[in-house]
Amino acid sequence: MKRIAVLTSGGDAPGMNAAVRAIVRKGIYEGFEVYGINYGFAGLVAGDIRKLNPSDVSDMIGRGGTFLYSARYPEFANREGQEKGIEQLKKFGIEGLVVIGGDGSYQGAVALTKLGFPTVGVPGTIDNDIPGTEYTIGFDTAINTVLEALDRLRDTATSHVRTFIVEVMGRRAGDIALWTGVASGAEQILIPEQDFDLEAVAKEIKQGRLNGKKHTLILLAEGVMSGDELAKKLREYDSDFHTRVTVLGHVQRGGAPSARDRVLASRMGAKAIDLLKEDIGGVCVGVKAEEIIYSDIVETLANGKHLPNLELYQLNKEISF
Amino acid sequence: MKRIAVLTSGGDAPGMNAAVRAIVRKGIYEGFEVYGINYGFAGLVAGDIRKLNPSDVSDMIGRGGTFLYSARYPEFANREGQEKGIEQLKKFGIEGLVVIGGDGSYQGAVALTKLGFPTVGVPGTIDNDIPGTEYTIGFDTAINTVLEALDRLRDTATSHVRTFIVEVMGRRAGDIALWTGVASGAEQILIPEQDFDLEAVAKEIKQGRLNGKKHTLILLAEGVMSGDELAKKLREYDSDFHTRVTVLGHVQRGGAPSARDRVLASRMGAKAIDLLKEDIGGVCVGVKAEEIIYSDIVETLANGKHLPNLELYQLNKEISF
Amino acid sequence: MKRIAVLTSGGDAPGMNAAVRAIVRKGIYEGFEVYGINYGFAGLVAGDIRKLNPSDVSDMIGRGGTFLYSARYPEFANREGQEKGIEQLKKFGIEGLVVIGGDGSYQGAVALTKLGFPTVGVPGTIDNDIPGTEYTIGFDTAINTVLEALDRLRDTATSHVRTFIVEVMGRRAGDIALWTGVASGAEQILIPEQDFDLEAVAKEIKQGRLNGKKHTLILLAEGVMSGDELAKKLREYDSDFHTRVTVLGHVQRGGAPSARDRVLASRMGAKAIDLLKEDIGGVCVGVKAEEIIYSDIVETLANGKHLPNLELYQLNKEISF
Amino acid sequence: MKRIAVLTSGGDAPGMNAAVRAIVRKGIYEGFEVYGINYGFAGLVAGDIRKLNPSDVSDMIGRGGTFLYSARYPEFANREGQEKGIEQLKKFGIEGLVVIGGDGSYQGAVALTKLGFPTVGVPGTIDNDIPGTEYTIGFDTAINTVLEALDRLRDTATSHVRTFIVEVMGRRAGDIALWTGVASGAEQILIPEQDFDLEAVAKEIKQGRLNGKKHTLILLAEGVMSGDELAKKLREYDSDFHTRVTVLGHVQRGGAPSARDRVLASRMGAKAIDLLKEDIGGVCVGVKAEEIIYSDIVETLANGKHLPNLELYQLNKEISF
Repeated sequence: MKRIAVLTSGGDAPGMNAAVRAIVRKGIYEGFEVYGINYGFAGLVAGDIRKLNPSDVSDMIGRGGTFLYSARYPEFANREGQEKGIEQLKKFGIEGLVVIGGDGSYQGAVALTKLGFPTVGVPGTIDNDIPGTEYTIGFDTAINTVLEALDRLRDTATSHVRTFIVEVMGRRAGDIALWTGVASGAEQILIPEQDFDLEAVAKEIKQGRLNGKKHTLILLAEGVMSGDELAKKLREYDSDFHTRVTVLGHVQRGGAPSARDRVLASRMGAKAIDLLKEDIGGVCVGVKAEEIIYSDIVETLANGKHLPNLELYQLNKEISF
Repeated sequence: MKRIAVLTSGGDAPGMNAAVRAIVRKGIYEGFEVYGINYGFAGLVAGDIRKLNPSDVSDMIGRGGTFLYSARYPEFANREGQEKGIEQLKKFGIEGLVVIGGDGSYQGAVALTKLGFPTVGVPGTIDNDIPGTEYTIGFDTAINTVLEALDRLRDTATSHVRTFIVEVMGRRAGDIALWTGVASGAEQILIPEQDFDLEAVAKEIKQGRLNGKKHTLILLAEGVMSGDELAKKLREYDSDFHTRVTVLGHVQRGGAPSARDRVLASRMGAKAIDLLKEDIGGVCVGVKAEEIIYSDIVETLANGKHLPNLELYQLNKEISF
Repeated sequence: MKRIAVLTSGGDAPGMNAAVRAIVRKGIYEGFEVYGINYGFAGLVAGDIRKLNPSDVSDMIGRGGTFLYSARYPEFANREGQEKGIEQLKKFGIEGLVVIGGDGSYQGAVALTKLGFPTVGVPGTIDNDIPGTEYTIGFDTAINTVLEALDRLRDTATSHVRTFIVEVMGRRAGDIALWTGVASGAEQILIPEQDFDLEAVAKEIKQGRLNGKKHTLILLAEGVMSGDELAKKLREYDSDFHTRVTVLGHVQRGGAPSARDRVLASRMGAKAIDLLKEDIGGVCVGVKAEEIIYSDIVETLANGKHLPNLELYQLNKEISF
Repeated sequence: MKRIAVLTSGGDAPGMNAAVRAIVRKGIYEGFEVYGINYGFAGLVAGDIRKLNPSDVSDMIGRGGTFLYSARYPEFANREGQEKGIEQLKKFGIEGLVVIGGDGSYQGAVALTKLGFPTVGVPGTIDNDIPGTEYTIGFDTAINTVLEALDRLRDTATSHVRTFIVEVMGRRAGDIALWTGVASGAEQILIPEQDFDLEAVAKEIKQGRLNGKKHTLILLAEGVMSGDELAKKLREYDSDFHTRVTVLGHVQRGGAPSARDRVLASRMGAKAIDLLKEDIGGVCVGVKAEEIIYSDIVETLANGKHLPNLELYQLNKEISF
């Protein structure tokens, strides 16, 4: 393998640029030529491909977003698009590909793998919902961004003796809500992976109010329901329940990556190069027990499952009364 | 005058604590005893009043929210509540009052003034919509908070070549949208104080897209319409218009106050004491051309009007294409 | 005038890029061609000059530093260098120049003015020490950066019941120390523009300690003396005086510009264009009482003087005991 | 065991309050009465002890520093002080103690253990230099604080084409320098645990300059030598070497804890309670491979050693050219 390429796909995540930087620099260090593909799989099919030099990734380690741009491109689910993509790669003499993104991006990597093109997946999404890894690139930054917003909300919640519902991202996963709930001392954390009884939740909130709590914070994963819906339901159980709903939105995706995300992205990007150097494709990189690992991407996507650490859920019950 | 009191009322704003600190410390420096009233006018009527010492405001200059708590209390519009409030003040031997808050709070201060109780208003609200001052305490912090969110959104907007509508606070005023629009280089700023033609706006956005703009940012003051409503209307003029709507919400009210807000709050708080020391009540403090001023609160509230600096609006048109 | 150029010189300051952006965009809006000169006066003499398009300043409004680079170039004090610079400008057909920087940069602008080349100075430095303006571009950001560091130091100071000396930038000016001292509630502020008696300072600090103060913060402008020197002198008066000295250093120069700096930079940059459009050179832009002004740069530099607002100094004495 | 106590000792670290909060809340949840000791071992000997209620730790999870205060108290190395401390604990009916701090604090915990008093150590220090754990409470926050400063310095370094030496904390350990070096893309990282050849370092820096690098960043752990010393030595090998030295200082200790530190502190605090509940003393809590562990504190302090992840050091060499 002489020439490899990298693309970012799906929702952007802080640290994607740090991963691309590591892939470019480590790739060149190991003797590869490294190409960048703009706009994810859409750019792959369109041949929007250019050679990257070490200086192209200067000062990129700290930038949010992705300088290779990302795009949704559902058409890549079709065999035709996939073959066109491989054709483009071959035209440029590219023999290996690194795909940075979430599970939609992994689907694309699996497709290329099945067609025999050596592909390595690197998990980049704030949602922390990818199998084959305990943490995704962007998650640590996102929870710190959410936490900063929660600290601000607490000022106003305390000043007014109020209840706040904060709806955070995560798609079908609850990790963002769970971690930021524990980190902010939220009274309630509602996530898709853990059943709960809304009536009991309403009662606990009411009891807290009667006990003189200055503010109550409810962390809600978007995968459970919307903040407005939750507010409506809680009011059904407790007519004195007044709340403000805050939907944090896309600010969660942006910002300079945290120290941990930059280091994780650098390690994962370098690992992708190590794998391609040994002609290992069809895999995805992950982190487990602080070690960088890899696994078969087809198998991982088919049977793997990312589960939140529910011990944190229980812990929060015991220290946030 | 020997004994004075201070309360915060209405929506909380960063810098309120810095203003209370200045009132307490400067008050004591000038020989007053200073009392704090919890929960705004509600606490005034209920007699939730306590003496404040210099150490009670230690480390308060940098805290968001208000440690005196705030509360809505529409009942204070009634003569009965006002008289009860004055009664409470007299019971504690308090002869002058400083009210920190927005225009609802000023209404309360006017009522007390009309009943002959020496009251000084200090403008504390992020909305920058109070007559009698160019800037309110909390505005500078709020625009920096919004700007940080916009910088984060830009990462993701650029990565995906997207249009964003960001709805910001300000009640009927456009200052937050105007300043953060200029400061973020927003392509469009929509505020209540400036007419605009939605069809022309839609055309400009479309043209930018055709010209290859990576992202378009629309800053929308909540006083114009909601973000969702705007998105719907723009789509009527341009069927290819896709957007993400972000409603920043209550995070805008929180956070440690900026340097400028802390200095402004300290100056305004000290001025309130200077006025009470000279037995001047029935006034509100403001800042104009960087000088701390004061004016008759009844007159100011009746006839004053805060207007945004529309030169900034024109400037943005000329540099954000 | 058809073609104009812009350079940044001296120490960089947050908001310089926002000023360049305004000059480029507003310049083009008014019909100019706008050129950028790299590396300040050094690049001017070397002819390191290129045309700037609107897209060259995309996403620049929020970036710290200066993308035109800056450099020290004492050689520009010589007539020979100045004439060489004008020659280069003429070679490119450039008829007007905007110089963004501190007072060293203004010296260069004065030299070009005296040789008849239309030049406009724009004040960009964190030090807030330029005559002809109340505020320089970068000052507001710098005081917020310092304040954030002070808030962090307070955590550790309070935890350990300690005295901290914090030495901040400002060259011969005390504005950074003065504003951040007020904004952080520093017990002592030492600036070059205000005489003080070290023995009295030492006594006050000792008294605070005896009164049970958890921490004492001394804000020291670098123009007074170094932090280590101050610590040594205070120990001479009070042998129980223990302190930690923190020198904040170059972090004060960096960071994304604050909302206020971005707006100020945009207004000043646009004003520079307005002036050149009316064939007005030999001037410098400023802000006074919130209005953008301009004045003769030769006269301003010869006779003007920036003075800190010493009312703030007195105010701090009255509220930081 | 019915009654337990908690103290913080040594240098403060962000997340200490979150750990105390978890100890108080989880302790009460498990049926203990929990007491707080002010000023570390000094307060223990002096009997500065009070009962803590759940509301005493409200809103503490996000505060920097330690609300229990910390203090140096070398006298606790003497048997007499230790016995006096145990006497005080017994006077209050306290049967178990949690000590949060660095290795000096662990020495105190070991002494109490050897005298038979059930003590649990929790690692709280930014330096990440405690045996028995991969990460200490405060480390993640500190590296993000340093990183923010480095991002600011990069603005000014790039603007001026400069070399920066940044000296960071860590005592004899290099973790802060190592992690922030990787996360900032520093060209050179100098830590005590890794030998290096200064002449080779000087050559690499010179080569980078000749290759047109815009800036060079050298991350220096304080345990190696001071920044000024390093600058002097590098200049001996390369007379054209010009640098700015920044010593980050105590700002590294402060600030609101990061999400990860709050979660880690909560988990560790809760674990300490679990241990005391099972009558296990004489141990210290740690985290290894993301799991909360514990080990014999006497053995750990005698024979354990915290080593930085030198793979990161090698990784940086390969991606920061």
